[in-house]
Amino acid sequence: MTEKIVGIRSGGGQLGRMLAASASLLNVQVIILDAGQHAPAKQVVAPRTPAHEHINGSFTDPVKIRELAAKVDVLTVEIEHVDAVTLETIQAETRERNLAIHPSPFTIQIIQDKFRQKEHLNSRKLPVSDFLAVESSIESIQRAAEKLGLPLMLKSRTLAYDGRGNYALHNLSNAQEALDFLGDRPLYAEKWVPFVKEIAIMVVRTTSGEVQSYPVVETVHKNNICHLVFAPLRTRDPALTRKATSIAESAVRSFAGAGVFGVEMFLMENGTIFINEIAPRPHNSGHYTIEACETSQYENHLRAILSLPLGSTTLKVPTTAMLNLIGHSSNISDITSTVDAALSSPGVSVHLYGKAECRKGRKMGHITIVAESDSQLRERLRPLLESMPDAKTELAKQDVDLYASLPPALGSGFSSRDPLVGVIMGSDSDLPAMLPAARLLDQFKIPYELTIVSAHRTPDRLVEYARSATTRGLRTIIAGAGGAAHLPGMVAAMTALPVIGVPVKGSTLDGVDSLHSIVQMPRGIPVATVAINNGMNAGLLAVRILSAGMPRLIEAMEAYMKKMEGEVMGKVEKLEEVGWEKYEVKK
Amino acid sequence: MTEKIVGIRSGGGQLGRMLAASASLLNVQVIILDAGQHAPAKQVVAPRTPAHEHINGSFTDPVKIRELAAKVDVLTVEIEHVDAVTLETIQAETRERNLAIHPSPFTIQIIQDKFRQKEHLNSRKLPVSDFLAVESSIESIQRAAEKLGLPLMLKSRTLAYDGRGNYALHNLSNAQEALDFLGDRPLYAEKWVPFVKEIAIMVVRTTSGEVQSYPVVETVHKNNICHLVFAPLRTRDPALTRKATSIAESAVRSFAGAGVFGVEMFLMENGTIFINEIAPRPHNSGHYTIEACETSQYENHLRAILSLPLGSTTLKVPTTAMLNLIGHSSNISDITSTVDAALSSPGVSVHLYGKAECRKGRKMGHITIVAESDSQLRERLRPLLESMPDAKTELAKQDVDLYASLPPALGSGFSSRDPLVGVIMGSDSDLPAMLPAARLLDQFKIPYELTIVSAHRTPDRLVEYARSATTRGLRTIIAGAGGAAHLPGMVAAMTALPVIGVPVKGSTLDGVDSLHSIVQMPRGIPVATVAINNGMNAGLLAVRILSAGMPRLIEAMEAYMKKMEGEVMGKVEKLEEVGWEKYEVKK
Repeated sequence: MTEKIVGIRSGGGQLGRMLAASASLLNVQVIILDAGQHAPAKQVVAPRTPAHEHINGSFTDPVKIRELAAKVDVLTVEIEHVDAVTLETIQAETRERNLAIHPSPFTIQIIQDKFRQKEHLNSRKLPVSDFLAVESSIESIQRAAEKLGLPLMLKSRTLAYDGRGNYALHNLSNAQEALDFLGDRPLYAEKWVPFVKEIAIMVVRTTSGEVQSYPVVETVHKNNICHLVFAPLRTRDPALTRKATSIAESAVRSFAGAGVFGVEMFLMENGTIFINEIAPRPHNSGHYTIEACETSQYENHLRAILSLPLGSTTLKVPTTAMLNLIGHSSNISDITSTVDAALSSPGVSVHLYGKAECRKGRKMGHITIVAESDSQLRERLRPLLESMPDAKTELAKQDVDLYASLPPALGSGFSSRDPLVGVIMGSDSDLPAMLPAARLLDQFKIPYELTIVSAHRTPDRLVEYARSATTRGLRTIIAGAGGAAHLPGMVAAMTALPVIGVPVKGSTLDGVDSLHSIVQMPRGIPVATVAINNGMNAGLLAVRILSAGMPRLIEAMEAYMKKMEGEVMGKVEKLEEVGWEKYEVKK
Repeated sequence: MTEKIVGIRSGGGQLGRMLAASASLLNVQVIILDAGQHAPAKQVVAPRTPAHEHINGSFTDPVKIRELAAKVDVLTVEIEHVDAVTLETIQAETRERNLAIHPSPFTIQIIQDKFRQKEHLNSRKLPVSDFLAVESSIESIQRAAEKLGLPLMLKSRTLAYDGRGNYALHNLSNAQEALDFLGDRPLYAEKWVPFVKEIAIMVVRTTSGEVQSYPVVETVHKNNICHLVFAPLRTRDPALTRKATSIAESAVRSFAGAGVFGVEMFLMENGTIFINEIAPRPHNSGHYTIEACETSQYENHLRAILSLPLGSTTLKVPTTAMLNLIGHSSNISDITSTVDAALSSPGVSVHLYGKAECRKGRKMGHITIVAESDSQLRERLRPLLESMPDAKTELAKQDVDLYASLPPALGSGFSSRDPLVGVIMGSDSDLPAMLPAARLLDQFKIPYELTIVSAHRTPDRLVEYARSATTRGLRTIIAGAGGAAHLPGMVAAMTALPVIGVPVKGSTLDGVDSLHSIVQMPRGIPVATVAINNGMNAGLLAVRILSAGMPRLIEAMEAYMKKMEGEVMGKVEKLEEVGWEKYEVKK
């Protein structure tokens, strides 16, 4: 516990509000400096004594910052575009009373100038795309284009966020337009990064410099503003998560000061990762942590700046998404329909920020969705995306297709896009034995994929399939094979998932060859073998296995077993009724 | 979304605070009536306009209640001990403007008088223990004792909570002492209920009378005050949860008005359930829902009283516990050590209520713990219980033993008290084949139990073991058997869990008899069969199965497989080094 008072320099935003709400859980006293008398952050903290009164004033006003600094033990920010020099002066002035400022003024100075930020990262051998300082002249831009090629990103070094201060220069003839757009701010140029995905990680850093990471997430931007976040990241590349985490942690280790940092990165087709930019504070890509992680980014920011032990950053739910509620106009009803849709969808938490006015591009709130599977997540997300005011535009429809398209109808005979179970077989001739597994999964509404992977004829495909199974989100694999029947065992050797083996009966040996080949695995690598040709039992076993992470399946399986019992009891009655001489045995 | 303003009549407590915090997430305007100017609830809601100013005054003062009623659209309470008649009058006065009062004044009248509450439940055939009205006289108590027997619970009909207003009469000679203790309040007597467990359910009721339940929880009281809550309830009786839920829902259906209701129940040795009492509001036994359920009891209370759709009441984590932080004296440092322990424990969320003064018996805060398994939950709870100021007393030590005792050391050869895996075998002669499974689970730190269940020699034990497996918290069962080897299949027939079968090699047929008996299950009931005598692979398969609900096991299994690979690569090198003529094969 702590008696320390935290001062938040807030710019009318939601980060200060969520930080303050988190502080009240720990009964940590918070004083807020914000220009708005009823700013979002101030709405959730009523001062208890005159000494705790909030301050009305700009978070950039040195007089007001000093006033705040005098009342608190720790000073933090919700936005890094502040006068770092004033902070340094205050830090120096207050040295004897140990005022803590997080992030450190020095870190803010580096980070708020994107060019210096890139230089800092580059000098520490952290991956950033090529960049160059440019002057506000057409000649300078031309020289940059010669070195970095076209298209080219021209960026304002300071005060740039949510896409403001960025200009994508596709043609040198637009250089003057770029200069006009970017105004008289200092500029730099970045080599174009044709990324396939944007990813991000929240990293929390203690006052002594230890770091701890949240999961890697996928972020989706719309009109340059964060639109959706998905956690954890799904990928075909099993090494990607470790690599991204290591880069983000190294980057955050290189900055002084405590608190959470948001590290935004670009992922290239070939698996290369570039750091895009770093925010030295709670970040939009970490909102999901409130409902989905053991400790939220807000609480861990507080713990870090108050020198308390950090909380665990582990996901406590299988999967989660965050959707920003962004104003489309001055009309608040823009977001109302989405909030209404959210209140009717299970697993959904609504956060409204209490901002006085709605504006185009303004973040008015966000919605967190938690789910037991990606497939359920998309199902829960879909009505929300469809309720958005721009839902009828092509862009928004693409959104639904990309991030919330429903899987093919169960029983359609096509693979789900978010399978929990992979049903594979060595040859299409095994299909009749495997179809009952698929139909059983349909019956239990379990998303799955069904395909051919031949151990002997497509060995590379076997390796890729098995190695990427966990990071793609599969939780179990059913593999059917006949004869030598190596598929189940070879898959089990290359994944940590439980693999169910179905021995398929061939034209000789009655399937005993397949059975022995599948079941008699050496110590170290198990295959869960079911009866010969019993694809249905493989499906049932997959459902039972999934119940370890989806408790509702226990009930569903109990109901299934009850129904089977009922069917046999029906036959008992029928036997009594018609007598065994007239009883017809159905095949 | 709603524009309605909610008025909370708060009695200086935490329920109003958590309700208000929940309202701010939805940007629902809240006005609080509380005697304290800086009451816990008021601390988290700063009024935005003069019309939204909180009211200072008692929640029982008719003038103040009218003042609040005039400012809001919906009126709710954090404590049911209010003047229901005043509420009825206000309801009548405000009929034309549609002021909603939840819970309804009529429901409050019934519930706040425990005798009327019991009469109400009894008249609806809901299970309550026998009870009688008594007068404040020794003769009346004697008559009650003749009818209900001794010991006897004497209870004040009104203003009784946290054990206040209860007197356990063991001997009639204490009748006068009881009357003195209970004062001049109206009394009633309840037949003694020698319960084995206290359980509770939060049920939320919409304005149209539909109900939705949270999970059944176990509650533990200390000095008559709620001390610990565990969710979900673990039990050997697979029907118990359904029965308790059905009773609680029927009870809540019988009361008018919307919102959440806490239903506290007694569980008897023979499985009988009695309703103890009902609270028409958020309840201490539902605090855990903030971190552990898809929608918290507070948000669902708001949704219900605002006629918004209810949120899902499902647990989003495998298991959770709540520990109250209760003052032992006027010294706030009583709870500091527990808070410090909590901040150092993963999966733990601290809630401090911001009460101005600590007092013996006062609820100062609570702690929620979430975990992937009961065993991890107890591990996380243990340092918290050990940090409590009374930790050295016998009572507190019993607490640790009962609710947070560590399992026997891994590898000790004794069963965990919270197993995730059941390792069973048909005969002690199967032990050598099954030991490698146990050792493997030790290695992965998976809590398990190991015992003998013989299908043929202990059939009743087989049934009880298999039927209670899911509700005791097991997630998979490893069953080893030889010869006819019926155990795995028979267990699989009586549980929805995945069952792993280990064919044990007998003196004839090389184990092929067991293999075929275990693997060739009929359609409908799968057994995940591993190689003959390969207990180790059964253990590994159990770990892989558990990973469906514990993603960290994926990484652990990958590390294990990497290690195996390394060991073989070491042999490759050694073969190169010494040559195959001198290479010694280890058995």
